[in-house]
Amino acid sequence: MEINLADVVMEVTAAFEQYEVALVQNQVPVLDRLFWHSPHTIRYGVTENLYGYEAIAAFRTARSAIGLDRTLKNTIITTYGRDFATANTEFQRGRQHGRQSQTWMRTPDGWRVVSAHVSLLPAPPTCHGGG
Amino acid sequence: MEINLADVVMEVTAAFEQYEVALVQNQVPVLDRLFWHSPHTIRYGVTENLYGYEAIAAFRTARSAIGLDRTLKNTIITTYGRDFATANTEFQRGRQHGRQSQTWMRTPDGWRVVSAHVSLLPAPPTCHGGG
Repeated sequence: MEINLADVVMEVTAAFEQYEVALVQNQVPVLDRLFWHSPHTIRYGVTENLYGYEAIAAFRTARSAIGLDRTLKNTIITTYGRDFATANTEFQRGRQHGRQSQTWMRTPDGWRVVSAHVSLLPAPPTCHGGG
Repeated sequence: MEINLADVVMEVTAAFEQYEVALVQNQVPVLDRLFWHSPHTIRYGVTENLYGYEAIAAFRTARSAIGLDRTLKNTIITTYGRDFATANTEFQRGRQHGRQSQTWMRTPDGWRVVSAHVSLLPAPPTCHGGG
């Protein structure tokens, strides 16, 4: 399996960047389109586990559009052959430090996320007093 | 791309189960073997971001073997063609509720994890008093 074929990396990078712009701007139709339209699609979010395209789309529709801006770092896109890729990135949103992992597949309609996992690194304790 | 070909699902399920046994028993050589031996391999753990096979192996070696037991639920393995798969599962470890996502690739040496992400769902607040 050939890793990181240049043209494939370019394609997946473009899809990844399209997703990122759509996320921070809360362009729900774009976010929906970039997820695989399948009951097999999974998205573990920061506080929710979503099984299937319909559950993910319902979450997008219900989510507040406020405070979605973030900065990425250590973004690593790796492609495996011509049809599969992973995209991993750390992000900073205010004081929160998170990680986002996506697995992408080429479909007849374009590159789609088949599985995603978003989480925050634990924050330092904020409790004071009381032992 | 054919989804969930029965023989491929069986192969990946066997690899996934081998990983799970090795994890709770802290069989470090097995855990190491099941991760892709590549600088591209990524593992986001509960509290750490590890880039490359060597960093992941160093983490395994340094980790305490105590308290790794856990119970899985909602495990979903999906295969895409013959060479790629995702394995997502929720887990319970004591009072902690977590999620583990893995992307697997077929290599000449067998199925290997090329990307993994493990996180805990946020616990309910435990601070009392002080407003």
